[in-house]
Amino acid sequence: MRRQNLSLVLGTVGAQGPLSRADVAARTGLTRAAVSSLVDELQANGLIEEHEATPSGRVGRPGRGLVVSDHGPAGLGLEVGVGHLGVCLVDLRGEVRAWRQVEADNQHRSPERVLADLAELVGATSADGLRPVGAVLAVPGLLADAPGTVAHAPNLGWHDVDLAELWARSAPPGTPALSLENEANLGALAELWENPEARDFVHVSAEAGIGAALVIDGRLFRGARGWAGELGHVPVRPDGPHCACGARGCLEQYAGEAAVLRAAGIETDGRDGVPQLLERAERSEPRALEALRTAGEALGIALTGAVHLVDPQALVLGGAYAELAPWLLPAMRAELTARVAVRPWSADALTASALGRRGPLLGAARLTVRRILADPIGVLG
Amino acid sequence: MRRQNLSLVLGTVGAQGPLSRADVAARTGLTRAAVSSLVDELQANGLIEEHEATPSGRVGRPGRGLVVSDHGPAGLGLEVGVGHLGVCLVDLRGEVRAWRQVEADNQHRSPERVLADLAELVGATSADGLRPVGAVLAVPGLLADAPGTVAHAPNLGWHDVDLAELWARSAPPGTPALSLENEANLGALAELWENPEARDFVHVSAEAGIGAALVIDGRLFRGARGWAGELGHVPVRPDGPHCACGARGCLEQYAGEAAVLRAAGIETDGRDGVPQLLERAERSEPRALEALRTAGEALGIALTGAVHLVDPQALVLGGAYAELAPWLLPAMRAELTARVAVRPWSADALTASALGRRGPLLGAARLTVRRILADPIGVLG
Repeated sequence: MRRQNLSLVLGTVGAQGPLSRADVAARTGLTRAAVSSLVDELQANGLIEEHEATPSGRVGRPGRGLVVSDHGPAGLGLEVGVGHLGVCLVDLRGEVRAWRQVEADNQHRSPERVLADLAELVGATSADGLRPVGAVLAVPGLLADAPGTVAHAPNLGWHDVDLAELWARSAPPGTPALSLENEANLGALAELWENPEARDFVHVSAEAGIGAALVIDGRLFRGARGWAGELGHVPVRPDGPHCACGARGCLEQYAGEAAVLRAAGIETDGRDGVPQLLERAERSEPRALEALRTAGEALGIALTGAVHLVDPQALVLGGAYAELAPWLLPAMRAELTARVAVRPWSADALTASALGRRGPLLGAARLTVRRILADPIGVLG
Repeated sequence: MRRQNLSLVLGTVGAQGPLSRADVAARTGLTRAAVSSLVDELQANGLIEEHEATPSGRVGRPGRGLVVSDHGPAGLGLEVGVGHLGVCLVDLRGEVRAWRQVEADNQHRSPERVLADLAELVGATSADGLRPVGAVLAVPGLLADAPGTVAHAPNLGWHDVDLAELWARSAPPGTPALSLENEANLGALAELWENPEARDFVHVSAEAGIGAALVIDGRLFRGARGWAGELGHVPVRPDGPHCACGARGCLEQYAGEAAVLRAAGIETDGRDGVPQLLERAERSEPRALEALRTAGEALGIALTGAVHLVDPQALVLGGAYAELAPWLLPAMRAELTARVAVRPWSADALTASALGRRGPLLGAARLTVRRILADPIGVLG
């Protein structure tokens, strides 16, 4: 009961603050005495703060304004891409307080080495007065049933790696234990939290691989084993090129980053090729335009299947696709309009995310904050 | 509260009867007095009956055994296929008490005419002592938002038809109002109710068109607009044959009933061609085998996409596909095994339904019974 009420008070202050204690009582239906006791506990633990005045606009003696703390408990987001590492700290309000991304050739190094570098990056990243209470790593791959373990991250060449254990060995003292989440899922969650009124959508993103995530009725749909949304290996042309996964004609062979860069004639040497691709597309370089058109067409074909199977309200392009949307959307919309013919379909249902490539790392950091807001008791002293 | 308790008592008797009143009290946690009052009300309304002895196997004076009634309130299931009409009556135990299916060329007749014939068939179908309290029609198409209305049944050529209204005009006196459900959804529900431990599966069925239904966490997943599971128009070969829907290379062009019969060289003249196809396959007629192999291959490709997107525990072949399973499964399993490569996949996860073509009609009739068991108050006097 107290657990629920702590969450109710913290959530109300977070969503509607600054609020006076009386406001909190009125909006939660709790008594003033109960609110005061709950607020005191949250305040003593640094989750909320009381400022001098509340800008409530009402006549009368101003109360003191409660807001969610911008120091104290925080969320640490981590990201391992094929070509980069990322670290992000968000405060309890979800605001980004530190953001570091560095290029790194993770494809050719051991998981031990990659996590050691990530730990070093975390050590060099801090925000005054913030205390990370959860660390979530965005992983470009499938998670195993065992917590903290990656089952298969094909683009990194990782199989059955216990990342939580490696992290515990290399992380700076005081860093929280690591939990994992699929990067495509985190991108979709970040999108959902930005636009909470969107409740049924398929979020499609590309980093090294292609990942999709299904948000159904405002919640991430993970499937029976947690592997839903593996759009990158949906067959687009069954007799198409061989894919690294062992199958043929997978979407990744047409719209995956490596395939698009290759088709555009861009050599990356393990570096991030997307800025080059963007630059060439912006000056209408024909090979780049054609590579993006081909990718958009294949995405449109694969997503036709997703629309028919899942019946989402919207399709959202995230990750690198969001930046490339001006060149992907026309072919995608043409395919979807031509192929989703047995039922109504609006071209407007396909949009690009405003978060773009920041989505997964932001989602990783904010996941901890969402967990605290839903159940603060774990971080109380 | 009384509503919940009525459902609890009825559900307990239905699942575990015959039970004495004392058994019901023990299993529901209700007092004996409360159970007696609830049982009396259910009994007075013909939902449960009390028999002489309970075969509980326990020592002591035998109590009286409560069972769900096999007369009284019943479910009426109706089906309009391209080539047939169906009527089914089930009692509250879900047992089939009447079953009529007749061939009918529904493709070339108006909805008015089809429903008038269906009403006539209902009039000629009865089971002593059963009183249908709900009528559910299995529709091979997409439902509109307006209740009782079909938005689009392409294989019947129906668009925006208010079937509930047509039914009200032609149904025999005393027949309950009509509600609609997609036939593929009803097939999947029938399957779920037969095997309640299966909680995450994709059910694929073919009548005139191809329909799939997603059962997720033991519940039908309908999508944002109720149109999830439209597997028949998932693109299999994007440059493949033109489909009646307007798109190209849809699964229906390879594995739909019309496509398979055509490939097998079977002319139906509007009659049910599946028995002929079965007969030819049983005597290993080469064209029939090849047509079924091609269909199985296409089903395997389309379902690869479904496995990647939705991550079901199982795939179930229902409807006519269940009868054809011996000839479809080998090619389907070969495709799925070769194409679901990025994650584990077991060939055993694909099975054929034991209900087969009876699924949708059975599901339609049992839907009413499930509704009564979940909330009996609507049928109490």
